[in-house]
Amino acid sequence: MKKERLEAFSDGVFAIIITIMVLELKVPHGEHLDALLPLWPVFLSYVLSFVYVGIYWNNHHHLFQACDRVSGAVLWANLHLLFWLSLFPFVTGWLGENHFAELPAAVYGIVLLMAAMAYWILQKTLIAAEGERSVLRRALGQDWKGKLSPVLYLAGIVVSFWQAGAALAFYVGVALLWLVPDRRIEKTLR
Amino acid sequence: MKKERLEAFSDGVFAIIITIMVLELKVPHGEHLDALLPLWPVFLSYVLSFVYVGIYWNNHHHLFQACDRVSGAVLWANLHLLFWLSLFPFVTGWLGENHFAELPAAVYGIVLLMAAMAYWILQKTLIAAEGERSVLRRALGQDWKGKLSPVLYLAGIVVSFWQAGAALAFYVGVALLWLVPDRRIEKTLR
Amino acid sequence: MKKERLEAFSDGVFAIIITIMVLELKVPHGEHLDALLPLWPVFLSYVLSFVYVGIYWNNHHHLFQACDRVSGAVLWANLHLLFWLSLFPFVTGWLGENHFAELPAAVYGIVLLMAAMAYWILQKTLIAAEGERSVLRRALGQDWKGKLSPVLYLAGIVVSFWQAGAALAFYVGVALLWLVPDRRIEKTLR
Amino acid sequence: MKKERLEAFSDGVFAIIITIMVLELKVPHGEHLDALLPLWPVFLSYVLSFVYVGIYWNNHHHLFQACDRVSGAVLWANLHLLFWLSLFPFVTGWLGENHFAELPAAVYGIVLLMAAMAYWILQKTLIAAEGERSVLRRALGQDWKGKLSPVLYLAGIVVSFWQAGAALAFYVGVALLWLVPDRRIEKTLR
Repeated sequence: MKKERLEAFSDGVFAIIITIMVLELKVPHGEHLDALLPLWPVFLSYVLSFVYVGIYWNNHHHLFQACDRVSGAVLWANLHLLFWLSLFPFVTGWLGENHFAELPAAVYGIVLLMAAMAYWILQKTLIAAEGERSVLRRALGQDWKGKLSPVLYLAGIVVSFWQAGAALAFYVGVALLWLVPDRRIEKTLR
Repeated sequence: MKKERLEAFSDGVFAIIITIMVLELKVPHGEHLDALLPLWPVFLSYVLSFVYVGIYWNNHHHLFQACDRVSGAVLWANLHLLFWLSLFPFVTGWLGENHFAELPAAVYGIVLLMAAMAYWILQKTLIAAEGERSVLRRALGQDWKGKLSPVLYLAGIVVSFWQAGAALAFYVGVALLWLVPDRRIEKTLR
Repeated sequence: MKKERLEAFSDGVFAIIITIMVLELKVPHGEHLDALLPLWPVFLSYVLSFVYVGIYWNNHHHLFQACDRVSGAVLWANLHLLFWLSLFPFVTGWLGENHFAELPAAVYGIVLLMAAMAYWILQKTLIAAEGERSVLRRALGQDWKGKLSPVLYLAGIVVSFWQAGAALAFYVGVALLWLVPDRRIEKTLR
Repeated sequence: MKKERLEAFSDGVFAIIITIMVLELKVPHGEHLDALLPLWPVFLSYVLSFVYVGIYWNNHHHLFQACDRVSGAVLWANLHLLFWLSLFPFVTGWLGENHFAELPAAVYGIVLLMAAMAYWILQKTLIAAEGERSVLRRALGQDWKGKLSPVLYLAGIVVSFWQAGAALAFYVGVALLWLVPDRRIEKTLR
């Protein structure tokens, strides 16, 4: 199977998720600053989630550039990733509306963790299809970011019940870690 | 006519349907577990519908891979399928909000049945264009899943008026049946 | 300029318009038939608008298949068409919610008329770029449907102030007229 | 890296932004003119923002036509532009709902300014990747529109606190300036 339609469909879902998240930023009633200011936590959580979806799109882009064809298992591993990403608008809205409270921070972290696991499964499925000696396998190398991130998400989830702010620091940290695009695949492809 | 634009348009509609369904999962007011927990039926019905749209996208992907060009009749058969799929967010939201009540379960089944009929019509239209000896015709073979599913949907609809839970068991069953991607077309193409 | 990105962008807008229209079909509170039944006018107007957007997508598809490159003027003529189509969800929702009342029926007709004018301008702009002797020019031929439709829309708008039902009959009539896909371009391309 | 997926993803986001803006045009309760008329400021601000997103899509289209490959930095510069564009539905709705009041007019201008800066950064990043002697660099030339626009936005923002109407005149002016598509790149490509 060719990968083009999987990429096109995923791009569509990524584009919609990143855009409908902004619908949680509800137009305030009132034209003055006191109507706009209470929105800052929703805005901040929107920025964080926008960056996360951007990171996933970026890495997804790199991942599929390193492989040629996709199997039925890859289609479902990809849908599984998109499922967890599709929950971003919900958890982002809940986190922002409750001003970064404990439980919303934990649930946000759980969805981040599940998306990271789904991405890891997608990678494994692709490598299984491409082979251990493939460009993709070599390009991923040690994948220390991929291994560290779930640990940091877990730490964030545990911490969130005491200190929601500390949990958010973990999530922002992981985002910064990934903000540098994944040059491994670019390098190996060259 | 080339099939690329039909695929691109359909991918767009699939991507939007699968993503706006999550908008029915409304951000709760309140930051505690008692605000989140009542959402579980909406979440479960979202998962079921996500899997169904995923199955349709998967099979749509396979179906069009086995054919080259599309006619005007195929364009409309495809739009007819997308129409019934576009009602998924509505029936999913209604089913979830009413905690899997009788009528919503029946209406959900009716939309599933209509989508299955529309898919069957699309297949017929494509085979009519490609010919009885085409790759597509051979790939579909007996199509026992395609023949069994409407029967199970019908059973679910009838049963739903006594036991909504039993109806849902039928719908989940059909989804599991299809979750295995349709290898017939892959095999024949090889 | 290549036409591929214009087609991709337009497909995206068509796909979103056709799908967000269904959001006007709001999930009812209540699980019984008396909660569902009042939605029938919204459902019917959704069906009509779905068919209209389908027709526009179909014809748009055929139109651009007959030409190779696009100019800056074509980009704007296309955006102008998409602007009027983007008002479909609004007028559809208004028409349905008010059970096909007079003014909503007139406004619905005005948006249909403006979309038809925008499509006509797009055709003219494309022909200007392709030349009077182009495949496209010959394929369109007399274009009697394109000439008759605005007249029927106008009749519908005028009539709507006396009889909203009659206006709707005009709009349904034009839709039926176009439901047969435009075979002129297919024939000429062959 | 190939530019196709970046274009496809951006087209998706552009298409969704331009279409969900219309959701701020809420279906009025009531079937008469006095229900429809209060919507005119929301409608006007929708038209202005539609034109702006159209301009950005047009210029984005031209920009990427003049280059072949994209780097990791370009992916993020592009996402940064899409971030500011994704705030258009919010500021458009706020501007319209408050009948072009002072603060909403200023905030609208700030988002316009940030989007212009993001576009300028994207251009710089692309030129850095393509080289000072590239087609793109020559095509952009003096880029006087790109230099003048931020000044006019700034003027609009400052003025908005005294006269919201004057600020809007500035924003409409810049839109008219850009409405003429950017022929520089088309010319140089020829």
